[in-house]
Amino acid sequence: MIRVGILGATGTVGQRFLQLLERHPDFVVSAVAASDRSEEKPYVEACQWRLPGDFPESVRALRVRPCEPPLDCDVVFSSLPYPVITNSSSFRMDADVPLVIPEVNPEHLALIDLQRQRTKGGGYIVTNPNCSAVMVALALAPLHRRFGVTSVVVTTMQALSGAGYPGVPSLDATDNVIPYIAEEEAKIERETKKLLGTYADGAVRTADVAVSAQCHRVNVTDGHLGAFRVKLERRATLAELRDAWATFRGLPQQLELPSAPTHPIVVRDEPDRPQPRLDRDAGNGMSVSVGRVAPDTVLDWRFVALSHNTIRGAAGAAILNAELLLAQGRLLQPPRAVERAPARG
Amino acid sequence: MIRVGILGATGTVGQRFLQLLERHPDFVVSAVAASDRSEEKPYVEACQWRLPGDFPESVRALRVRPCEPPLDCDVVFSSLPYPVITNSSSFRMDADVPLVIPEVNPEHLALIDLQRQRTKGGGYIVTNPNCSAVMVALALAPLHRRFGVTSVVVTTMQALSGAGYPGVPSLDATDNVIPYIAEEEAKIERETKKLLGTYADGAVRTADVAVSAQCHRVNVTDGHLGAFRVKLERRATLAELRDAWATFRGLPQQLELPSAPTHPIVVRDEPDRPQPRLDRDAGNGMSVSVGRVAPDTVLDWRFVALSHNTIRGAAGAAILNAELLLAQGRLLQPPRAVERAPARG
Amino acid sequence: MIRVGILGATGTVGQRFLQLLERHPDFVVSAVAASDRSEEKPYVEACQWRLPGDFPESVRALRVRPCEPPLDCDVVFSSLPYPVITNSSSFRMDADVPLVIPEVNPEHLALIDLQRQRTKGGGYIVTNPNCSAVMVALALAPLHRRFGVTSVVVTTMQALSGAGYPGVPSLDATDNVIPYIAEEEAKIERETKKLLGTYADGAVRTADVAVSAQCHRVNVTDGHLGAFRVKLERRATLAELRDAWATFRGLPQQLELPSAPTHPIVVRDEPDRPQPRLDRDAGNGMSVSVGRVAPDTVLDWRFVALSHNTIRGAAGAAILNAELLLAQGRLLQPPRAVERAPARG
Amino acid sequence: MIRVGILGATGTVGQRFLQLLERHPDFVVSAVAASDRSEEKPYVEACQWRLPGDFPESVRALRVRPCEPPLDCDVVFSSLPYPVITNSSSFRMDADVPLVIPEVNPEHLALIDLQRQRTKGGGYIVTNPNCSAVMVALALAPLHRRFGVTSVVVTTMQALSGAGYPGVPSLDATDNVIPYIAEEEAKIERETKKLLGTYADGAVRTADVAVSAQCHRVNVTDGHLGAFRVKLERRATLAELRDAWATFRGLPQQLELPSAPTHPIVVRDEPDRPQPRLDRDAGNGMSVSVGRVAPDTVLDWRFVALSHNTIRGAAGAAILNAELLLAQGRLLQPPRAVERAPARG
Repeated sequence: MIRVGILGATGTVGQRFLQLLERHPDFVVSAVAASDRSEEKPYVEACQWRLPGDFPESVRALRVRPCEPPLDCDVVFSSLPYPVITNSSSFRMDADVPLVIPEVNPEHLALIDLQRQRTKGGGYIVTNPNCSAVMVALALAPLHRRFGVTSVVVTTMQALSGAGYPGVPSLDATDNVIPYIAEEEAKIERETKKLLGTYADGAVRTADVAVSAQCHRVNVTDGHLGAFRVKLERRATLAELRDAWATFRGLPQQLELPSAPTHPIVVRDEPDRPQPRLDRDAGNGMSVSVGRVAPDTVLDWRFVALSHNTIRGAAGAAILNAELLLAQGRLLQPPRAVERAPARG
Repeated sequence: MIRVGILGATGTVGQRFLQLLERHPDFVVSAVAASDRSEEKPYVEACQWRLPGDFPESVRALRVRPCEPPLDCDVVFSSLPYPVITNSSSFRMDADVPLVIPEVNPEHLALIDLQRQRTKGGGYIVTNPNCSAVMVALALAPLHRRFGVTSVVVTTMQALSGAGYPGVPSLDATDNVIPYIAEEEAKIERETKKLLGTYADGAVRTADVAVSAQCHRVNVTDGHLGAFRVKLERRATLAELRDAWATFRGLPQQLELPSAPTHPIVVRDEPDRPQPRLDRDAGNGMSVSVGRVAPDTVLDWRFVALSHNTIRGAAGAAILNAELLLAQGRLLQPPRAVERAPARG
Repeated sequence: MIRVGILGATGTVGQRFLQLLERHPDFVVSAVAASDRSEEKPYVEACQWRLPGDFPESVRALRVRPCEPPLDCDVVFSSLPYPVITNSSSFRMDADVPLVIPEVNPEHLALIDLQRQRTKGGGYIVTNPNCSAVMVALALAPLHRRFGVTSVVVTTMQALSGAGYPGVPSLDATDNVIPYIAEEEAKIERETKKLLGTYADGAVRTADVAVSAQCHRVNVTDGHLGAFRVKLERRATLAELRDAWATFRGLPQQLELPSAPTHPIVVRDEPDRPQPRLDRDAGNGMSVSVGRVAPDTVLDWRFVALSHNTIRGAAGAAILNAELLLAQGRLLQPPRAVERAPARG
Repeated sequence: MIRVGILGATGTVGQRFLQLLERHPDFVVSAVAASDRSEEKPYVEACQWRLPGDFPESVRALRVRPCEPPLDCDVVFSSLPYPVITNSSSFRMDADVPLVIPEVNPEHLALIDLQRQRTKGGGYIVTNPNCSAVMVALALAPLHRRFGVTSVVVTTMQALSGAGYPGVPSLDATDNVIPYIAEEEAKIERETKKLLGTYADGAVRTADVAVSAQCHRVNVTDGHLGAFRVKLERRATLAELRDAWATFRGLPQQLELPSAPTHPIVVRDEPDRPQPRLDRDAGNGMSVSVGRVAPDTVLDWRFVALSHNTIRGAAGAAILNAELLLAQGRLLQPPRAVERAPARG
């Protein structure tokens, strides 16, 4: 079993990590870290559990550590700006840092070798994208591969849990829409281009796609919805689009990674789907649902996509990245792992 | 005082009509009509009042009539497919029927003359637009006048009251977004073109604007929000856009019609406005609020607009049309009114 | 495997039945019945699936039948007034009809023998209670057994799904509480007395408990919450109350019935629990959560209880009753089952 | 005009004060005070306006002062623990501090004389009650006067605005009920007894009423709802109860104070009223609505009451108290007011 440390373990994304890793076939949580205030308490006392479902018993008694080395683990999942496999936005756009969705751009992980050359050690950073960028890039990837996407206009309706806890005040959420999420539009625009970019000769070339994002917070607990228009390089029929999504598979499906959904994209044909409450848990929260596909009057096509923001968009995204790194032998390089262990002593 | 009849008087839009007309300087409600089930009951018994605020006392005892002539009134406001001033979508796109927002295209009312020639009588139909089309056309009109709009991509987040009562089941609304409103996208696309069109020689020529609409129902009681991207014929600066909206005035403002808002468009500069709960009542529900104006990465500009869907989008739209017709002397042509009266006897 | 028919299979409770029975160890759905409108369509077409989670594949192609014999099954679960194991309120208070919560009053099932004598056949009716009465009776049963309950004052805050689909209009639910649910208060008051009653000599004597219920609909999808005050016959300490709930077990736990929760009552010690969103799925929706236990200033004790209204309160209640009848050999009397079979031919 | 200072002017209750006082016939806001962070900014910059409706223009340019003397005003309204007319709970239960609802117990204001004797100055403290206690005491007062209330069991469903801003996280509010509001139950229980108490010989004797309160936070923006059971000393009929409420008038109605509602209690006869969204603005938010009156099975009577928590329950409560003090000549004692003025210079 690979021993995992969670940074920011008491927050909403941290709690999702613990929930998704309870009973995982390969990973066991051996360390939880959070800010000073919670330090040295047993996790059960430090954490105000906010998710439906039971508290994860296996971590009840773990002492909460500060978010710094040494931590008693082989790999770290982080929602803090701590370099390893991280949700943090700090490093995503760095030239030698891979920003990866395993189904979309696993070849970008080759950037790890550059990092290692530079740092001369075994450590490296892999980042997973902004929760909305995951949805955008996953929904576009099958179209981009087959038809080439030249422009995308996406309008998001994002869930409350994306703002963490306490996050959005209920007086702002109830009977309301907030047409603003700080820095979100820029993140979606630049990360989508990197995710759809190509790797060659030690560098990622961002995709030549114009991306326009407008972001809104709506009164939904979980599940980000996006309304899309896209312009394609090559002509396509509705049946071809549908087929591109429905048959889309990536490396995680090929390797049968434990958290990989069978269908990365689920196509819905009902006129009123996908909906957050009904579809966010598709593929255990790891599938993106696509529906309402139709010709558009300004660009070429329009459709709607939905993704679970704290699973596929955060905790699940990091776990799937880790599973891929493990399967590729990049996670635990036996000699270095041994070397690192004493340093923690 | 002009005596007004309300068709569909017991529904949500009908109730808004009564609320807005209570204490109106020119109009008094003299007849309420609704479907067979309510007929002949006093209005207070026939109607399940669903709006905040008091029941309008002046109509308490009015007997509910069937929705057909004769009705004891000079003009009819209708949310039913009854030809006069109507919210109904049935006639909006007819060649000789004016579809009018008084600030946007009052000159289209000239089509009334064609109708009268055809019908050889004093009766005619004037329609007001779909509740979202009102917002779209009003938000675009100042830009179209000054810079020319060639394309618009709008994604709506529409309120529950737009579906009437009982309307959307709460199980669909709570913790959810529904990416579908029957026929709404097509209505917005075609009505916007007619509203921005030009009148000449007895006909309206629809505007040469590509319109793309995607519509969503969100968990908000009142207030439709739209996220817009637009492409303009002429270059503009942000300051010029802002100025076009802020200084926009129309015939209702010039004529100082009773229900005309001082500012048809209110520009908000805060980063997180407009919001439905905070801004839907701007200008007594008759102003459209615009915010988050910024350059766009696919089209030219992006912004967000908000409008009260049952006031500016329905009941208030019809009343403002009536006020304009009255001011123009088109509502009550004394001789014909007299002629019509005996027919009702 | 016992073959099960579902009456009212296309409604919200019917859908819960199908979801809970998918992959059940003893029961397989062999017939679905609903109103005339859906008849003879495949279930997948007749039903608008409204629950999160996948459509139950095993019933996709089953033709929807009318709600009348013969149905191709051994036992029927019903949310319609069809005599077998039913959620319907029609027969609950009949003298020879058992109204049963398996943990609370399994001995009332002896009434079946009276029914059989009367009908001279193998058929009989078993009813499960109103969704709120289940919560009230389960929360009170441990106290009643040990200390005797003489009065209970309960104020409910009930979920939207309790009203079925389309049910409560969203305009009534959003930003609102509705202090009225038709007939609900009377149902809770009389059913609680029967559920806590004693069986002797072929009759149920209702419990001598004064029950006062006030019911409200709140903006929650699933999970009924009740605020309780109780008066007890015998003095108790807070620790004794807590213990009575925490150690409470019934026949289903003893018999290890498939749907029986390990803990019928889960006691929460946090100051702000139970909450619908966090606790409704306790024990797979079959446990009642109790919290905020404290001395009361008018009666003796106060507390709050929560129960999943469509699982423990409806579909799960019927299934647990069926599991108990099966375990007792009352469900499938081999000779009679054989006799009935030809009649279906 | 009396010049008014508002302490805590940037919070939700502070904003209500400014909204309610805009265009008041007697009071004009001359000073706004808030915590250090906002100090010395113009109010328009210091305040994030959170209420529907326009920003109150008259206070736009007022500089925000620290919450301490001297303030440029004759009287202070406070939601902070500053001694004058205050919503703060700090002094409410002090023996010589009047806790007053003008319709219920205006005679308690005689305690002011005791305070003045003690402080030997013109200053004094008047408090208004907890937002739920206002509703409870107002709903009970007519019954207590006429029939004597001996016990009351109230279960509240309280609005989000009662928790201030940012207040309740939206993840806790959406699809949920929180059965806990810190210290609220104790406040209601003790304040109700003082409010219904009698004044004699320089002291208030608390009423001999047993009060039991259970409090819940529900997903409603404004309007606290309470479900009541009461036990009365004297027998009453339903018609007599109804009459006691409907005919109830107090000193504010007699004196025709500007903010006094014509009907302190509005009785609703529909089976499903009062509801927060429909009834919270009754009497401009100053009336309590009562409905669902019926005999109870444990105590004598049950009913439901509703009150606007930031108007009648906070800002409006303080303003009505000030209007009463002004009418009684207690607010502005000319000589002392003059004396105080130079100190401010």
